[in-house]
Amino acid sequence: MKAIERVKNDLVIANRILAREEVADAYGHVSVRNPDNPHTFFIARSLAPELVTPEDIVELDLEGNPVGSDNRPLYLERFIHGGIYEGRRDVTAVVHAHAEDVLPFGIANGTQLRPVVHSGSFIGAHVPVWDIAERFGDTNLLVSNIAQGRDLAKTLAGNNVALMRGHGFAAASRSLIEVVRMSVYLPRNARALLSARLVGGDIKYLSEGEIAARNREAYSPYSTATWRAWEYWANKCGCGNLLTRPEATK
Amino acid sequence: MKAIERVKNDLVIANRILAREEVADAYGHVSVRNPDNPHTFFIARSLAPELVTPEDIVELDLEGNPVGSDNRPLYLERFIHGGIYEGRRDVTAVVHAHAEDVLPFGIANGTQLRPVVHSGSFIGAHVPVWDIAERFGDTNLLVSNIAQGRDLAKTLAGNNVALMRGHGFAAASRSLIEVVRMSVYLPRNARALLSARLVGGDIKYLSEGEIAARNREAYSPYSTATWRAWEYWANKCGCGNLLTRPEATK
Amino acid sequence: MKAIERVKNDLVIANRILAREEVADAYGHVSVRNPDNPHTFFIARSLAPELVTPEDIVELDLEGNPVGSDNRPLYLERFIHGGIYEGRRDVTAVVHAHAEDVLPFGIANGTQLRPVVHSGSFIGAHVPVWDIAERFGDTNLLVSNIAQGRDLAKTLAGNNVALMRGHGFAAASRSLIEVVRMSVYLPRNARALLSARLVGGDIKYLSEGEIAARNREAYSPYSTATWRAWEYWANKCGCGNLLTRPEATK
Amino acid sequence: MKAIERVKNDLVIANRILAREEVADAYGHVSVRNPDNPHTFFIARSLAPELVTPEDIVELDLEGNPVGSDNRPLYLERFIHGGIYEGRRDVTAVVHAHAEDVLPFGIANGTQLRPVVHSGSFIGAHVPVWDIAERFGDTNLLVSNIAQGRDLAKTLAGNNVALMRGHGFAAASRSLIEVVRMSVYLPRNARALLSARLVGGDIKYLSEGEIAARNREAYSPYSTATWRAWEYWANKCGCGNLLTRPEATK
Repeated sequence: MKAIERVKNDLVIANRILAREEVADAYGHVSVRNPDNPHTFFIARSLAPELVTPEDIVELDLEGNPVGSDNRPLYLERFIHGGIYEGRRDVTAVVHAHAEDVLPFGIANGTQLRPVVHSGSFIGAHVPVWDIAERFGDTNLLVSNIAQGRDLAKTLAGNNVALMRGHGFAAASRSLIEVVRMSVYLPRNARALLSARLVGGDIKYLSEGEIAARNREAYSPYSTATWRAWEYWANKCGCGNLLTRPEATK
Repeated sequence: MKAIERVKNDLVIANRILAREEVADAYGHVSVRNPDNPHTFFIARSLAPELVTPEDIVELDLEGNPVGSDNRPLYLERFIHGGIYEGRRDVTAVVHAHAEDVLPFGIANGTQLRPVVHSGSFIGAHVPVWDIAERFGDTNLLVSNIAQGRDLAKTLAGNNVALMRGHGFAAASRSLIEVVRMSVYLPRNARALLSARLVGGDIKYLSEGEIAARNREAYSPYSTATWRAWEYWANKCGCGNLLTRPEATK
Repeated sequence: MKAIERVKNDLVIANRILAREEVADAYGHVSVRNPDNPHTFFIARSLAPELVTPEDIVELDLEGNPVGSDNRPLYLERFIHGGIYEGRRDVTAVVHAHAEDVLPFGIANGTQLRPVVHSGSFIGAHVPVWDIAERFGDTNLLVSNIAQGRDLAKTLAGNNVALMRGHGFAAASRSLIEVVRMSVYLPRNARALLSARLVGGDIKYLSEGEIAARNREAYSPYSTATWRAWEYWANKCGCGNLLTRPEATK
Repeated sequence: MKAIERVKNDLVIANRILAREEVADAYGHVSVRNPDNPHTFFIARSLAPELVTPEDIVELDLEGNPVGSDNRPLYLERFIHGGIYEGRRDVTAVVHAHAEDVLPFGIANGTQLRPVVHSGSFIGAHVPVWDIAERFGDTNLLVSNIAQGRDLAKTLAGNNVALMRGHGFAAASRSLIEVVRMSVYLPRNARALLSARLVGGDIKYLSEGEIAARNREAYSPYSTATWRAWEYWANKCGCGNLLTRPEATK
């Protein structure tokens, strides 16, 4: 399997995992930068992630226009992806979704969403909140043009995740597997923090040093521990048969 | 497929979606106005939504009486539907259900149920609470005659959703697909708001302008984004094979 | 099918419903009084409710001894059932289980568990809390002899449900279908009340008049509305094929 | 089936139960001491518990080194198991996992995690919290060497469960079946306690006498009541066919 085919194949798995793990429902999407051309990215046509197959993958440029003659309907919010890829050359994959337990932290301001469990450390030490109303006033809250996408990317800055007030989140990472893992553990970290509020008393967040220790590790999406999760989630969502591991293809 | 057949077919899908998405259980029902006669509506006979098939659809007049000779047992609370259709000529479809996370807002008065996430904007800026006891005293809380149905419709007024104290909610909309979507996102918006209470601090509701922006959009139940959810939910509840999209039938 | 066969058949359905609706897990049990002999009752041998088949039903006397030569292991807590049947001649069916959302109300005393939603009205206006430690001191909390079963029945008195501190609940009713329905809606009413605490402000419980209105209705386990739930739950737990309705057998 | 084969077989069931009951996900692991050699233990190779089969079981010494020539990748945190087996000769089985509802009690300090329901009594009267930072400073929170494993075992001391701050828990017991049961009821006890906080008022924990009464019982992993849970969970996770009960093999 060629690199580009494997990327598209993995993108299908990523869509299905996000649906099965309840990060996405009918809405929400995941994309990956074209490994052969940093100015385009792959994403599904407008379709619920659970239903995505290889035939549904389209290629878009960073302003959200389709490459070639594909004229199937697209996700309205593809500008989230374009805006982030444009501003962050280090980013290879992006997720936007509305996982329920993340939403409260974009609605109320009494507790900051930061890592409280080791698996949440991937979201990074700082998770900014982007409020579309600050620059764009009363909208339907959707990121529906590239100016809005760029503004979100500006708030995201060098962080891994930005919350979107009253809407959801955007996550960016150096690999597809990592952005999926981050998107799965983001709501879990949020739930642990919500419940810690019920426990009461002082909340002990991970220290900056602990977060750095985790993210500093020599990184490989195909390391034993990372692959273990990808393999598990792929099997759980019925995509075990689609799994490929680069070593096996060399 | 003729319009009326498609409407009945979609009503079956709607029943199954509401069951699968845990909006309805053994109780709760969804109806659609007869496209050929605004004085009658279609609804299932007394049957759990998950079990509804095309053969279970009956036609009732706005006072809840069956049209024709069908004498199968009916939902006791069919008067909710009749009352709303009578008072609201703009309404094409109605849901009544007891989705768990909506109930607390009809029981306690410390927080108003209003849109906090963009997908909740469909419920509208104002969600009145109807208390059957105000006019009817100590009842079993069920809407069991047309006078009660009309009283509920009066509280609903021009809004999209009314909470029913200690009971559930009624939602009304211009299309079946829209009322299902609203009924699915109503409890999710409620959950996000409940959890925002745990986050603490100030809660940022959607502004009136944001809610209007969302609802002002040129509306089509078969738009790309709306269809995406309907298609997803229909597949998820095992009704993918029943899907029809009007374009395909023209 | 003879009455006694139908009762055993329904008891299998009841076991499977309680498992599927997460009222029982490996533990928890449901029984029904022998329609031909008020001094014995039917219950499964020691087995998780989800696995119960007709062959697993045993007959016990009110002190918990098996009738006949059946010597298979029995539920330790069968004395809950015996104690209640002995003290309450109006009771035909009993459930004991540990549904998670009921537990908190037997642990903390800040909020009384009472009906807040119409479907919770079946639990009755008063739900006493039985603490085994009051009369029996430090035990393993299990009702392991008839004296303890009788003490629980004394606290239950004429009510429908008693909470058991740090343990679970016991529910008693005039029919198997009704005790199952009550056991399914008990934790839902509890969840609605817990969430209402998060909503904040004043909580509006159902009035005594409303609870009475609901429970005063001419009762039949095979009424349209009650059957609708039983039929739904039986199908959902894979027992649709076991359903029998008395009319059909006359 | 020989004892050692049965142990490995049961270890597969244990892995699958922990996955199905949502105690483990891609991460988390369970081990059992070698019945023929107290200086080694069995555990899966680095693999999600849901996917473990008999071929995936490896044998490690108490310092975490594989016995024999098996060179498949291992769980990084195998030192949790080694450290506990080394320090506690009475322990036959160990679980480490990150069940979500346990986490808050390792993050916030306002409420102590102790038994509030009888099924939670297995966790024991005292559940210490181990914070890796106390002795090892800023780490990635994972127990990645034997010194850390021993330090955790020191905090665990003679208790059944230790919480790991910002990470999860470790549970130790005299049999595999018991450690699985404890791991399943630990998060349930935690949820009941969290919800009791919402109920408000005073929380009634189990007394020391009640906890002792439960744990003092003559113990057998194959007793009627314990087997009932194991049999149920094994069937629920699709491993009913793997069940063996010692009596049947004698």
